Amino acid sequence: MQLRELAEKLNCRLVGDGEIEVHHLAPLHEAGEGDLVFVANSRDLPKLEASKASAVIAREGSPPCSKPALLANDPYLAFVEALCLFYTPDRPTPGVHPSSIVQEGARLAEDVAIGPLAVVEAGVTIGRGSVVGAQVYIGEGCRIGAGCRLHPQVMIREGVEIGDRVTIHSGTVIGSDGFGYLRDRQGNRIKIPQVGRVIIEDDVEIGANVTVDRATIGATRIRRGTKIDNLVQIAHNVVVGADTVIAALSGISGSVKIGDRVTLAGQVGIVDHIDIGDDVTVGAQAGVAKSLPSGSVVLGSPAVPHLVFKRSVAAVRRLPRILNTLKRIEGRLASLERAVGEREEKAQSAQPVPECLNRESTSEGRPH
Amino acid sequence: MQLRELAEKLNCRLVGDGEIEVHHLAPLHEAGEGDLVFVANSRDLPKLEASKASAVIAREGSPPCSKPALLANDPYLAFVEALCLFYTPDRPTPGVHPSSIVQEGARLAEDVAIGPLAVVEAGVTIGRGSVVGAQVYIGEGCRIGAGCRLHPQVMIREGVEIGDRVTIHSGTVIGSDGFGYLRDRQGNRIKIPQVGRVIIEDDVEIGANVTVDRATIGATRIRRGTKIDNLVQIAHNVVVGADTVIAALSGISGSVKIGDRVTLAGQVGIVDHIDIGDDVTVGAQAGVAKSLPSGSVVLGSPAVPHLVFKRSVAAVRRLPRILNTLKRIEGRLASLERAVGEREEKAQSAQPVPECLNRESTSEGRPH
Amino acid sequence: MQLRELAEKLNCRLVGDGEIEVHHLAPLHEAGEGDLVFVANSRDLPKLEASKASAVIAREGSPPCSKPALLANDPYLAFVEALCLFYTPDRPTPGVHPSSIVQEGARLAEDVAIGPLAVVEAGVTIGRGSVVGAQVYIGEGCRIGAGCRLHPQVMIREGVEIGDRVTIHSGTVIGSDGFGYLRDRQGNRIKIPQVGRVIIEDDVEIGANVTVDRATIGATRIRRGTKIDNLVQIAHNVVVGADTVIAALSGISGSVKIGDRVTLAGQVGIVDHIDIGDDVTVGAQAGVAKSLPSGSVVLGSPAVPHLVFKRSVAAVRRLPRILNTLKRIEGRLASLERAVGEREEKAQSAQPVPECLNRESTSEGRPH
Repeated sequence: MQLRELAEKLNCRLVGDGEIEVHHLAPLHEAGEGDLVFVANSRDLPKLEASKASAVIAREGSPPCSKPALLANDPYLAFVEALCLFYTPDRPTPGVHPSSIVQEGARLAEDVAIGPLAVVEAGVTIGRGSVVGAQVYIGEGCRIGAGCRLHPQVMIREGVEIGDRVTIHSGTVIGSDGFGYLRDRQGNRIKIPQVGRVIIEDDVEIGANVTVDRATIGATRIRRGTKIDNLVQIAHNVVVGADTVIAALSGISGSVKIGDRVTLAGQVGIVDHIDIGDDVTVGAQAGVAKSLPSGSVVLGSPAVPHLVFKRSVAAVRRLPRILNTLKRIEGRLASLERAVGEREEKAQSAQPVPECLNRESTSEGRPH
Repeated sequence: MQLRELAEKLNCRLVGDGEIEVHHLAPLHEAGEGDLVFVANSRDLPKLEASKASAVIAREGSPPCSKPALLANDPYLAFVEALCLFYTPDRPTPGVHPSSIVQEGARLAEDVAIGPLAVVEAGVTIGRGSVVGAQVYIGEGCRIGAGCRLHPQVMIREGVEIGDRVTIHSGTVIGSDGFGYLRDRQGNRIKIPQVGRVIIEDDVEIGANVTVDRATIGATRIRRGTKIDNLVQIAHNVVVGADTVIAALSGISGSVKIGDRVTLAGQVGIVDHIDIGDDVTVGAQAGVAKSLPSGSVVLGSPAVPHLVFKRSVAAVRRLPRILNTLKRIEGRLASLERAVGEREEKAQSAQPVPECLNRESTSEGRPH
Repeated sequence: MQLRELAEKLNCRLVGDGEIEVHHLAPLHEAGEGDLVFVANSRDLPKLEASKASAVIAREGSPPCSKPALLANDPYLAFVEALCLFYTPDRPTPGVHPSSIVQEGARLAEDVAIGPLAVVEAGVTIGRGSVVGAQVYIGEGCRIGAGCRLHPQVMIREGVEIGDRVTIHSGTVIGSDGFGYLRDRQGNRIKIPQVGRVIIEDDVEIGANVTVDRATIGATRIRRGTKIDNLVQIAHNVVVGADTVIAALSGISGSVKIGDRVTLAGQVGIVDHIDIGDDVTVGAQAGVAKSLPSGSVVLGSPAVPHLVFKRSVAAVRRLPRILNTLKRIEGRLASLERAVGEREEKAQSAQPVPECLNRESTSEGRPH
């Protein structure tokens, strides 16, 4: 694409030769002839000059450089828009690969593509234009909306409902049994049947090797627009609100309710049966043991408000010094006690005891 | 089912109209006509009255309500028993789906069902009534007992032994190589062959996307009745005792021995080569670095007895206040030292120095 | 194999009957007739004598035992070398299983074996002698080197490059989309296209159910000889150096650079966009929030140098005692203040006030 054309499409200011062609976007350290790069920071300008990149996207107002440039107030957004222009996701040809097993009674809308060796059980419906990758499994009675993408080796158990434009990455399991057991009258552990569903709303994206358990009864639900990273565990009867973001290796225990626009950083854990409000941020590796009101920002395990956490961490780092201070204080105290005590004794022997030297009160505080 | 009939089967006391029919169990907030709900807490009675539920399971002695009720001393158990009555797991028709690859020499007992596109390698034996889901892989020489259920996309490597009535959820990998390397004489890292087995005993249930590594030599073993949640890592040569429960995202390092009736909460980590006794409870996100005697209850990373942990957490929260207290103490000390010191100096200049004012001892404790 | 022959091959000193035959290696507690065992510790010698093992590998200089022995200075290495002699990994017969889908334009070198129900997309090249397990997926345009082993149910997305002698265990997903979103001008969250690659260099081994995301642009890269355990998350644009070891359930956030010969223990988390130097060791469950220079050894969340962490942990354990000490100190202080203060008051009423008793300075430090 000509740089001039790109500048128009991205609504950027063109500086330099607009006639050159760019073919790819590349990171600065890999860029070659024909590559457009993105420079976030003017510190990287020397690297840019040294590179073979043909053009650059940079911030409006950044120092001039020798390469043709597209300048934007939000250069990262311009870069992402350029990515969207250059790389349109490949859409497989609609149709069912002959090696796939689509059971009778499954209903596929127009333009659905089913890859090789997939299994679609009876009673499944799949909406218009959805793509089901190779080796995917879709259990009985599932409803998949339009424009979805299930990458190869995704596994959806029976009765799961998925909205429109949902993307699920490989290795992810939706609708496995919740983890629920109970002692019966004889003290044996029995399995609580997990007969509920999973509902995933529109525009959700779920990463690779995630697990989302079905509800005991009712539904485990992930609301619209929420994004879930790899290797996350969502337990039975959890409700995750809309536009929420959950980073990798986090675990949400059973029956937790999470609000809208929440951010859970990586490796977060949340105990069962609590409520996380809207617009909450939970820092990496935090362990949330109590419900959190909307707007909370917490850190630590157990999680506390982030300022409390930071103060605690700083104080703990000072602990060894605190121990030294305490030792010094005890030494000074002992000296003072000796000084005051000895004076008192002298006074007692040499002159009439003054009332002020109340022996009881001075000895009271002494170490045993 | 008629409510009267249900009352008898669940051994509950029926209050109200026993002739009505209930068709489903539902959570209170989703309940409609024909639904039986479970109310654990009398706080939820207003919600019950407002719902369309046809009947309720509640605790014997809870306040009366307008709906027909089944009263039980352990209403949650009654609810779970009702779940078992209403929802019998669907059993696929026995037989091997023609798209599956069952290698010669595999021996399937009566009533085994093998789903589409599964692979069963040579020398495998599968016991009576076991169900192997779609796209499952069972490696050479594995022995699977009777009444097992391997959900779709489970993967069992060669030589694994599985007892009776074992359930394994999708995406789980049993028998992958243990993580073992060694420096050879030249300092190169070489792989230690992992030629042992995995043995999973009767009545074990393993969640989705779990990994259980085979032993270096000998066996990694999970004893009878143990339940493992999603995304758990069990390393090589680990032995997990009977009736133990391991929650999601926990990791057990190599050669750890875990006792019977142990509970590991979510995201727990256990270092290699240690012993966890029977009836131990490890709290969420704890990191166990030392062997634990039977009956221990630990928390924290590194894990300590839970009372020690709670005291530490409380004390850390008070640390900023402790710092303030220390400052105040130092101020008071300085004042006292000045008072005592100045009096001493006065005494020295105005009158014969009293012996009690031992200069050396008072200065000794001073800050440098 | 005759023990004498084994002694020669392992370069061990033979003590006892070299004519006996050993057939297997076994752990001490499982050993039977014909088994060779390894005894690391002379404490285990009684167990050895009680066992049915036919021979033992032990340390040169350990106490004599009644069984034929192979003595070595590094007996564990000798044991591992014995494992390599006894157990050669089974190599499936080369060829493509007829149930596999190998798309036109895929190029398989000599001696490649493709298991049942695998999918190899167009444009894939696979090097000499590589083994692709059952139900593996290899996306369009991937390049797999020679001597690789992809275990059953591995999933490789399009455009991934894998070097020679790479082993990947079941359930692992390579090349899933990175987790990247951006707010557009309207405040909507949009997906950042993830159009980069993954490059895995020679001699890497990756465990089961791992996820390695493709780069946004450029490449996520794992350098030669690195070993990754199960359930690890490697985010987009991460670079992991050579000969590094990453234990289970660790998560590396986007654009992190990790050096050579680094060790990350289990459940470690690393925040995005930081650099970890060479020869760094990060302890289990640590959370690394800042770049680390080469040679660092860190622990804790947030991670700090291990000595600082250990001192902090020890100090925290002493906190309850510190609180008691503080109380005692305050008692002693109050007594002293009373003593000095009362004396002063007495002095004021009974005699001319001495200058030394500066009221202001003594009251200054008092608690409010």
